[in-house]
Amino acid sequence: MPDRVLRAMDFPTIDHRGPEFQRLGKKVLADAQKLFQTKSPVVIYPSSGTGGWEAALVNTLSPGDHVLMYETGHFAILWKKLADRLGLTTRLIESNWRHGADPVEIERYLRDDVGHAIKGVCVVHNETSTGVTSDVAAVRRAIDAAKHPALLFVDAVSSIGALDYRHDEWGVDVAVAGSQKGLMMPPGLAFNALSAKALSASRSAKLPRSYWHWQEILEANVNGFWPYTPATNLLYGFSEACDMLFEEGLSKVFARHQRLAKATRAAVSAWGLEMLCQNPSQYSGAVTAVLMPKNERGESLNADQLRAQILERFNMSLGQGLSKVSGQVFRIGHLGDFNDLSLMGTLAGIEMGLELAGVPFRRGGVAAAMASLIQADSDIEDERPLAQAFG
Amino acid sequence: MPDRVLRAMDFPTIDHRGPEFQRLGKKVLADAQKLFQTKSPVVIYPSSGTGGWEAALVNTLSPGDHVLMYETGHFAILWKKLADRLGLTTRLIESNWRHGADPVEIERYLRDDVGHAIKGVCVVHNETSTGVTSDVAAVRRAIDAAKHPALLFVDAVSSIGALDYRHDEWGVDVAVAGSQKGLMMPPGLAFNALSAKALSASRSAKLPRSYWHWQEILEANVNGFWPYTPATNLLYGFSEACDMLFEEGLSKVFARHQRLAKATRAAVSAWGLEMLCQNPSQYSGAVTAVLMPKNERGESLNADQLRAQILERFNMSLGQGLSKVSGQVFRIGHLGDFNDLSLMGTLAGIEMGLELAGVPFRRGGVAAAMASLIQADSDIEDERPLAQAFG
Amino acid sequence: MPDRVLRAMDFPTIDHRGPEFQRLGKKVLADAQKLFQTKSPVVIYPSSGTGGWEAALVNTLSPGDHVLMYETGHFAILWKKLADRLGLTTRLIESNWRHGADPVEIERYLRDDVGHAIKGVCVVHNETSTGVTSDVAAVRRAIDAAKHPALLFVDAVSSIGALDYRHDEWGVDVAVAGSQKGLMMPPGLAFNALSAKALSASRSAKLPRSYWHWQEILEANVNGFWPYTPATNLLYGFSEACDMLFEEGLSKVFARHQRLAKATRAAVSAWGLEMLCQNPSQYSGAVTAVLMPKNERGESLNADQLRAQILERFNMSLGQGLSKVSGQVFRIGHLGDFNDLSLMGTLAGIEMGLELAGVPFRRGGVAAAMASLIQADSDIEDERPLAQAFG
Amino acid sequence: MPDRVLRAMDFPTIDHRGPEFQRLGKKVLADAQKLFQTKSPVVIYPSSGTGGWEAALVNTLSPGDHVLMYETGHFAILWKKLADRLGLTTRLIESNWRHGADPVEIERYLRDDVGHAIKGVCVVHNETSTGVTSDVAAVRRAIDAAKHPALLFVDAVSSIGALDYRHDEWGVDVAVAGSQKGLMMPPGLAFNALSAKALSASRSAKLPRSYWHWQEILEANVNGFWPYTPATNLLYGFSEACDMLFEEGLSKVFARHQRLAKATRAAVSAWGLEMLCQNPSQYSGAVTAVLMPKNERGESLNADQLRAQILERFNMSLGQGLSKVSGQVFRIGHLGDFNDLSLMGTLAGIEMGLELAGVPFRRGGVAAAMASLIQADSDIEDERPLAQAFG
Repeated sequence: MPDRVLRAMDFPTIDHRGPEFQRLGKKVLADAQKLFQTKSPVVIYPSSGTGGWEAALVNTLSPGDHVLMYETGHFAILWKKLADRLGLTTRLIESNWRHGADPVEIERYLRDDVGHAIKGVCVVHNETSTGVTSDVAAVRRAIDAAKHPALLFVDAVSSIGALDYRHDEWGVDVAVAGSQKGLMMPPGLAFNALSAKALSASRSAKLPRSYWHWQEILEANVNGFWPYTPATNLLYGFSEACDMLFEEGLSKVFARHQRLAKATRAAVSAWGLEMLCQNPSQYSGAVTAVLMPKNERGESLNADQLRAQILERFNMSLGQGLSKVSGQVFRIGHLGDFNDLSLMGTLAGIEMGLELAGVPFRRGGVAAAMASLIQADSDIEDERPLAQAFG
Repeated sequence: MPDRVLRAMDFPTIDHRGPEFQRLGKKVLADAQKLFQTKSPVVIYPSSGTGGWEAALVNTLSPGDHVLMYETGHFAILWKKLADRLGLTTRLIESNWRHGADPVEIERYLRDDVGHAIKGVCVVHNETSTGVTSDVAAVRRAIDAAKHPALLFVDAVSSIGALDYRHDEWGVDVAVAGSQKGLMMPPGLAFNALSAKALSASRSAKLPRSYWHWQEILEANVNGFWPYTPATNLLYGFSEACDMLFEEGLSKVFARHQRLAKATRAAVSAWGLEMLCQNPSQYSGAVTAVLMPKNERGESLNADQLRAQILERFNMSLGQGLSKVSGQVFRIGHLGDFNDLSLMGTLAGIEMGLELAGVPFRRGGVAAAMASLIQADSDIEDERPLAQAFG
Repeated sequence: MPDRVLRAMDFPTIDHRGPEFQRLGKKVLADAQKLFQTKSPVVIYPSSGTGGWEAALVNTLSPGDHVLMYETGHFAILWKKLADRLGLTTRLIESNWRHGADPVEIERYLRDDVGHAIKGVCVVHNETSTGVTSDVAAVRRAIDAAKHPALLFVDAVSSIGALDYRHDEWGVDVAVAGSQKGLMMPPGLAFNALSAKALSASRSAKLPRSYWHWQEILEANVNGFWPYTPATNLLYGFSEACDMLFEEGLSKVFARHQRLAKATRAAVSAWGLEMLCQNPSQYSGAVTAVLMPKNERGESLNADQLRAQILERFNMSLGQGLSKVSGQVFRIGHLGDFNDLSLMGTLAGIEMGLELAGVPFRRGGVAAAMASLIQADSDIEDERPLAQAFG
Repeated sequence: MPDRVLRAMDFPTIDHRGPEFQRLGKKVLADAQKLFQTKSPVVIYPSSGTGGWEAALVNTLSPGDHVLMYETGHFAILWKKLADRLGLTTRLIESNWRHGADPVEIERYLRDDVGHAIKGVCVVHNETSTGVTSDVAAVRRAIDAAKHPALLFVDAVSSIGALDYRHDEWGVDVAVAGSQKGLMMPPGLAFNALSAKALSASRSAKLPRSYWHWQEILEANVNGFWPYTPATNLLYGFSEACDMLFEEGLSKVFARHQRLAKATRAAVSAWGLEMLCQNPSQYSGAVTAVLMPKNERGESLNADQLRAQILERFNMSLGQGLSKVSGQVFRIGHLGDFNDLSLMGTLAGIEMGLELAGVPFRRGGVAAAMASLIQADSDIEDERPLAQAFG
């Protein structure tokens, strides 16, 4: 989390009905559209990302409506539970967490739904629990190919600000995001990026709602305001985070994450370990989940013991395996305010941790990651050659 | 907003599943109970106070349930609109905004509801829009006297941390608060203080809910955690604000607010102006709304013009009159991190502003406020006499 | 001390030999010239203001040189002691601390010095200990009228950023300032503003010096650097403080201080108390020293008891009387980040403190100060009439 | 520079004559003694470290006194120049910057000074420009062996807080330090740690001094105060930095620096590069200077080109070679708030930079550094064996 963002937030809260706030409000609403790559409105809530999931559904659906969810990992499952509690009928395509949502399967499912009982399809773009991404554009094409009117809901919580997410181009109806991942901010803001079709659906949706109701918010947003007290200081931070992302340039931000992800995978492979994600086209640029090796009895060594040892010895916290893969994986985050050298520190901590913990592995991960980064530089130099200082 | 609170919030967000967070979580949950003067659980949401209103209702009521609301001012009306949108049937006791909720009227209303269609009574403890408080304990007694099973919902948004609010002693079922008033914090946290009866009601309540659902939160709270990402940095601020309040001592905090409110009213009276609140027993210790004088045609002079002139000349922002009293009142906030001398600066700005704007008034408000504060000191000295330095 | 300045200082220290520092260095050196209203160089030291006194003398004088000092108050005496310790021969014009340096007396003294043994005349522009200013331009004219070659040294420690100080126009040779008064900064920076004559004197001056040596610093300053490690973070603060002063406009800053000083004196007079400064043309715009009334035995009431009582009751710290006037005066600072309403809070604290302490006085000081501020507004309005909102 | 220290400094400056400051003053003076490992007083100046050099000399010596300086590197030479300008007679033992002060040579020099013209011996404990330390205790023994009464002056600017410096045990008379190295603070404070002999010398020393005069400062320090305005906000930072160092434990802090220095040297050796420091017993734990390889014509490759390329590509700033070794070395700082993983990031940046710049070198430096750190762990485990998690 960059100090610049934290400091932007620790100023006194301005009057949320005054002209200074109005300027802030208009700016952050425009920033949000730029982030989601959309011309449609983006709604910002004082809420965690979970509230964004709820808002997307209650604004567009009616009690009992069917929604198709895809089990890409832990967060897809949580979203399903939330939908169940809201009184929706969820249908889950199950999966082993090692690949993204399969458009073919979705298309088949929707073709079978001849009565169009299914009102929405929910997909997680970047599964933080597995390091697997789903091809959102392909899911859209699958829905269209099935000539199905269902809305497309996308969890972009850990994509926004880290991975290339194209709301309009991909034809997403409601995208959900939070402040605490690629935006390098504390949690406390949730986002809904809309489409014309989603707005239209909201007019006839019957789920009760007030706090999450888009209409009143959108009306107030026209003038840069909110119908109720916004989380002004988090908006300060959001504004600053957007400035940082736009100063670097979104395409450079995305390329940086991909370069770091590739170097991370080079290290994992050099260690002789396996990624949880099985399909290279679905590797996440934001997080890499690594499977622990198995012992002679075919049982996974305990990832949490390794994580604990690395935390104690190097004061570095790796992501834990959640629910289905608990204890079997550790996760390396490489999103946000992260650069080549901080990644090298991270990978060195893991390499030393693997050794100190006695995990069977091969050394050379950091070296492989350095080679990967240098290769990335030379790939760029092929286009834009730079003179070497020496030799 | 004290710098101490702002600075507490600008630290990197810790892992909300780790042991450091756990300590924070347990502390702030205990702090919240102390603030509400309750032994029942308090639920904390990443949300604005409006979300707290919604949470209170969706956790305890079912579609179509009747709720009795009392029109004490702007915020009571907003709460009613929210209840309407959630599919509840609201019954409003109308009022002229110049006095608090009348327990006699509430008791009569409930006695008439022989079928107990009314499931809840909603009252705003401190109406920020009018500077009028309602006697919550008396409302409880009215419900009990009517032998009515309705739940008692209280908006304590601008009471908590400023006015003496006694959740358990007064028999409130759900109290709602936010972070941005007496807690001297930025907005972004909402609170629900519960009762056993409210918890029991939540088990059969039928309004759909997930984000606001108490149960899962209370289960996770047992260990100091939340079921979804909490607004960690706002919790840092909340923890610090509670430390400040408890260091001063809640009873001293409340007494300070009452002393400042009394001095403010002494100034208003000396100016020859009228308080919006007509009943002295209902004067708010947190905010004072002042009626502008009328011209010879009996029309109120425009409060917003005065406010604008004071803002431009003294860089001081007074509260505006909302909806029904728009343009007719200005409001003096004296809550939060406010002391005798900052109040004197505020009152001097108003006194000079009244003069510069040509409002008909009498000088001497600041002098009267100083006399009020000195009198307050001598009242204390009667009990605990202190030697004067001279004379 | 404005939060904006404090926050500007808490960033990591940049490399003081790099290009980013160079930009900062050039900016602050230009800012310093603007502050002193000079085209000559200004030297900035990591040091307290006392170091600035020493630097002024060791760069321009030789062991045993005579300097003429004027006893305007506590700080003039400290400067004299410092000069004595450096091996200079000091000649002090004594005074009762109730008026500024008398140019007539200085001229007479210099005319008597036919052998030109006196190499420098030292005057304090704004005596913080007494609230008395000296007419620096008149002192310059006195030296010139006496056709005496002595250098003119001016302590501008509490003038810079608060009072109109005109280095070039007034013909000062070395002015000394510090960071902690009108610049609204923490202490730790000292300044020497030079003249061509001072630079010329520095070439033949024989007092040993290295840290304070102008030459090496001025050479490095040409490129925005320093010959040794500068106090970079204090320079961040200085840069921000200058931005604030220049945004408001120096002439407006000076006018604001004079307006607040006049209102303060109106309060003091209304209380029936006496200013230490006896000559109205020498009233300080930055600080007002107030004499305590005397008891029937002609002894001053103890100012420090009053100060202690105000500190305890209102958490407000007034300046103490120093050495010669210890216990007899209290001082009201009205410099730096101070506005009409903070002054009213301050004066109200004193008025209530006088009453609570039993000091014989008349009420009405705050009212008189408000009248003074309103009068100041109407003086401006005579030129630039503004419509009143009402009446 | 740790955020914790920066934030400690951005609070409003307290009254430096009040009781709150007094507590701070007493604390930091005690902290300073603990840091220097001395029971003698430590004087703290608002000044850069250069001022500390000056203070040490002007308090103890008289015009024309001889001092023996040892050319260990850039800073030793700067100190000599300062002494020259103060009117002292300096005698320099020249050297090639690749080893520390030689006690044998010093002893010989002092034995030759039969008339005891030499009043002081000046040695730099840790030469930041070369990464070479000098054995201060051995220099003391050399002086004693020569039965010479000269005072021992030690530059500990980059030792304090990073390397084990033992003022009393080693018999140093005046040690000089600054705030901006091992103390992890911004520049702006200088320190003089004294001895009884130094204090005695100060009573007869004839160099003029006032700002630097120990006596008045020591008198005021008895009560926790300073005779002139101290740099209060830098003292806040110093206090916090000391807390951090003492919480970790000085011996652990020193061991951490040595461990990181050893790993750095392992990397340098693996790269096939040479340390500037030739004597392993004099390797610095705070900074390592690395010689660039030579080309076929025997000329050093340009270190500054490499530094520039690493800065541009990895946003990492390495120390430059100063004066005599300009362009021939780059310096790796590993002092202050630095840990295993930040060192790995640094070394990875250099290893990739060497490759991208085309410098002839061998890969494997980072791997060697990791092996060094793991070995260090196992050395500790030999004493305190810890169970491995696996294997």
